[in-house]
Amino acid sequence: MKSSEIRALFSVVSRPEVVSLAGGMPAVSALPLDAVGSMIGELVSGMGAQTLQYGSGQGDPRLRERICDVMALEGITDASPSEVVVTVGSQQGLDLVTRVFIDPGDVILAEAPSYVGALGVFQAAQAQVRHVAMDDDGLIPEALEQAVLECRARGDRVKFLYTVPNFHNPAGVTLSEARREAVMAIAEQYDLLIIEDNPYGLLGFEREPMRALRARDDERVIYLGSFSKTFSPGLRVGWVLAPLAVREKLVLATEAQVLCPPSLTQYAVARYLDTQPWREQIKVFTELYRERRDATLESLSALMPAGTTWTRPEGGFYVWLKLPHGLDAKLMQPRAVAAHVAYVPGIGFYADGGGTEHMRLSYCYPEPDQIREGVRRLARVIEAELDLHSTFDGVDTGTFRAVRAGAPPVIGPSNSDQSGDRQP
Amino acid sequence: MKSSEIRALFSVVSRPEVVSLAGGMPAVSALPLDAVGSMIGELVSGMGAQTLQYGSGQGDPRLRERICDVMALEGITDASPSEVVVTVGSQQGLDLVTRVFIDPGDVILAEAPSYVGALGVFQAAQAQVRHVAMDDDGLIPEALEQAVLECRARGDRVKFLYTVPNFHNPAGVTLSEARREAVMAIAEQYDLLIIEDNPYGLLGFEREPMRALRARDDERVIYLGSFSKTFSPGLRVGWVLAPLAVREKLVLATEAQVLCPPSLTQYAVARYLDTQPWREQIKVFTELYRERRDATLESLSALMPAGTTWTRPEGGFYVWLKLPHGLDAKLMQPRAVAAHVAYVPGIGFYADGGGTEHMRLSYCYPEPDQIREGVRRLARVIEAELDLHSTFDGVDTGTFRAVRAGAPPVIGPSNSDQSGDRQP
Repeated sequence: MKSSEIRALFSVVSRPEVVSLAGGMPAVSALPLDAVGSMIGELVSGMGAQTLQYGSGQGDPRLRERICDVMALEGITDASPSEVVVTVGSQQGLDLVTRVFIDPGDVILAEAPSYVGALGVFQAAQAQVRHVAMDDDGLIPEALEQAVLECRARGDRVKFLYTVPNFHNPAGVTLSEARREAVMAIAEQYDLLIIEDNPYGLLGFEREPMRALRARDDERVIYLGSFSKTFSPGLRVGWVLAPLAVREKLVLATEAQVLCPPSLTQYAVARYLDTQPWREQIKVFTELYRERRDATLESLSALMPAGTTWTRPEGGFYVWLKLPHGLDAKLMQPRAVAAHVAYVPGIGFYADGGGTEHMRLSYCYPEPDQIREGVRRLARVIEAELDLHSTFDGVDTGTFRAVRAGAPPVIGPSNSDQSGDRQP
Repeated sequence: MKSSEIRALFSVVSRPEVVSLAGGMPAVSALPLDAVGSMIGELVSGMGAQTLQYGSGQGDPRLRERICDVMALEGITDASPSEVVVTVGSQQGLDLVTRVFIDPGDVILAEAPSYVGALGVFQAAQAQVRHVAMDDDGLIPEALEQAVLECRARGDRVKFLYTVPNFHNPAGVTLSEARREAVMAIAEQYDLLIIEDNPYGLLGFEREPMRALRARDDERVIYLGSFSKTFSPGLRVGWVLAPLAVREKLVLATEAQVLCPPSLTQYAVARYLDTQPWREQIKVFTELYRERRDATLESLSALMPAGTTWTRPEGGFYVWLKLPHGLDAKLMQPRAVAAHVAYVPGIGFYADGGGTEHMRLSYCYPEPDQIREGVRRLARVIEAELDLHSTFDGVDTGTFRAVRAGAPPVIGPSNSDQSGDRQP
C-alpha cells in the first residue's frame, strides 16, 4: 500500500459518518489548549527575535537538554545534549539516519510487520528490507540471529536492525525484558547497529516505562524520539540520539535538508517541558488511551467471529488484527468503507507482500462509543465475507486471495486470549 | 567552505565585539511581535485540535491558496493551490526537487557564484555543478547556451538550470528583463528545465517586483518560494510550485522525509496573511534594508582601497565584493575576525574552487552604524594585506594564493561605479 493509497483512504474516512480506526492521530484536544496557547503567544511576543529567527542546524541547546531529561525516564541517563539532533518529527530522524548509512542494495532488518513510514524511507533509499518474525513478546531473537546468518551467507551488507520495541506500530506488542537482553547480545556478537524508534515508550497502561535498548549500549544503538505522541504532532519535533561521529554526519545532512528545524516549535516544546505539568499530561493521555484500548478489546472479544485474532497492547495506539484464514484485508476494505468503518490493511506494513490477512486498528483518536460502533460494523463486514467465502469456497472470485504456494509463512503476533488459530 | 566551517565561523562571529557581515538573518525584530504573538496564541487556544495535529503532506489548503496570492505579485497568475507543496523552508523544496530529478553524475547548471545551500544539496546528490558566468545583469544568456552545448557535446545529462534571478545570493545582482526573455528562449530551444529560487523577489528597493520566470512558462519552470525573508525564517515555511506530475512526486518525497510540514507554523503564516498588513510589513522591511544597503555602499565607496570592486544590489541582503588581485578572502579571514569583522569567503559559493578573491557581505542584520564600523575594519584589514602583498610581492607566502595557470577565468559581477579593475 503506497502513501498515495493511504492518502486516498484518509480522504474517504474523514467523512463524519465513517468510524475511522485507520489514522494514528493523537488526542491533542486533551491538552490544556488555553495554557499552551498563552505560553506560545508569549514566546513570540517576548522572544520573537529568537523564536522567529533561524536557529542552529542541530537544534536549540535548551531543548536538547530537556530531551535528555525525557530520555532519562526510560533509563538513558548518560546522554549528552551534544549527542542530540533535533528533527522535524522523528520521521526526519529516520530519513537522516537512512541517508547517512544506506547505499542502494544494503539490507535492513525490520520486524514483520514494520512501521509503514520507515518502509517508505528504506524503499526510497533502495534498501532491501528483510523482515524478522515477532510474536506477543516482540521481535524473536532466534529469528533475528537466523536472519543475520542468512544475510551473511548470501553476502548481503546488513546495515542495521530497525525496531520499535514499545507498543509497536502496527503490531501493538512490546519487546520483553529478557528479549531486550537477548537482542543486545546478538547485536554485540554480530556487530549489528540498532535503530531504536520509540515514539510510544512513555504511553504504557500497565507499568513504568521499560529500559530502552539505548540505555544498554551507547555505541551500538541510535535512538529516535518524538514529542508527537506525548505533546503535539503538529509541532513536528523529534530527535535523534547518536554517538558524536554519527551526530556530526546527521547535522550536515539536516542542514542540507532543512537548514535548521523551526525555532518556534522548538522553543514551544522546551517551554512546555519547563513550565507545564507534562508528566501529569502524559498520565491524562494514557488514561484516555487505556479506556479506548479497553473499549476496543472488549468489543473485539464480544463481537468478532471465530478465527479472528488480535494483539493486546499494553500501551500506545494500535491493535493488530488477523482475519480468519483466506480473507484479504485490502480486498475487503471497500466493503468496510461502504459499511462506514475504516482500518489500514496489513500489507502496507510489509516490504515483501506479507500481511494480507492482517489489519491495523487504531484506538487513539475515536471516543469509546465510536470505537464500539466501529468494531460492530467491522465484525459484520467480516461475517459477511465469511458467508461469501463459505458459499464460494475454493473458488478464486478475486475476493479471496489464495495463499501463494511457496510464499514464506507470515509470522505475526497472535491474540493470546484466543486459541486454535495461532500461527507458528 | 563546508557547512561545518560556516558553523565554526558563525560561532566566532556571534561574539558581541565582532561586526558580522556574514550571516543572512532577516531583521525579524521589525515585525509587530505583540500582534504576531497574540495571533499565534489564539491559533493554539482556539484551534488547537487543528494547529497541534498532523496535517496533510502537501500542506494546509488555506495556506496554499494564500501562497498563490503572494506569487501573483510577481506575475504568476495561473498557479493553482493544487500545484503548491508546502515545505520546511525553501531549502527542503530544493532538496525535494533534487531528490526527484537528480541521479549521481547528472549535471546541474548554476550561476557562478551560486547559493551555498544549493551547492550542498547538489553535492549530497552526487550531481556535477557546471557554473555559468554572470555579470551586473545576472546570468549571461550566451554563457548559458555555451554551457548547454558543451555539456551536450560531452554527453553529460543536464537535468536543470538552478537560478536565483532576484537579488542573488551571494552576488546581489538581478536578471534583467531582456535576459529573462533570452534565458526562457534558450530553455525552450534546448528543452531545459529551470529551478527558479526566489526568496528575495519582493524585497526590491527601487521598483515593483519583476515578472518571475515561472510567469513566462508553467511547464518548464519549477518555482521555489519562502516566507523566511518576508515574514519569519524561524517558522520554516517555504513552498514549491510545480506541474501536477512533478508535484505528485514531491508530495511522496516530502511524506517520506517529514510526513507533513508543521501545522502550527503553516496556520501561523496563513493567519498572518489573512489578518495582518503583510504588504505594508514588507515595505517596512525593504525600507530598513535599503538604509542598510546604502550604509554599506557609501562606506565601501569611501573606505575601500583601489582595486576592490563590488556589486550594487537593488534589493535583498547581499553585496558581492572582489578583493584586489592576488588577495584570498578565505586566507584573510582569520585576520578579519581578529580585527572584529566577519564575512563569508567567496569560495563557498563555487563548486569548482572559484571565488577565492571574493566575499559576501550581508547588510540585512546589523544596524547602519555597525555596518559602517564593520566596513571600516574590513578596509583596514584589506589595506594591511595589500601592504604585506607589496612587501612580499611575487613570493608565495601561503597568504596569497597565486591564480592557477590554466584555470578558467572567474567571471563575476563587478562594481559599475568603479573603473580600471573590471574583470572580463
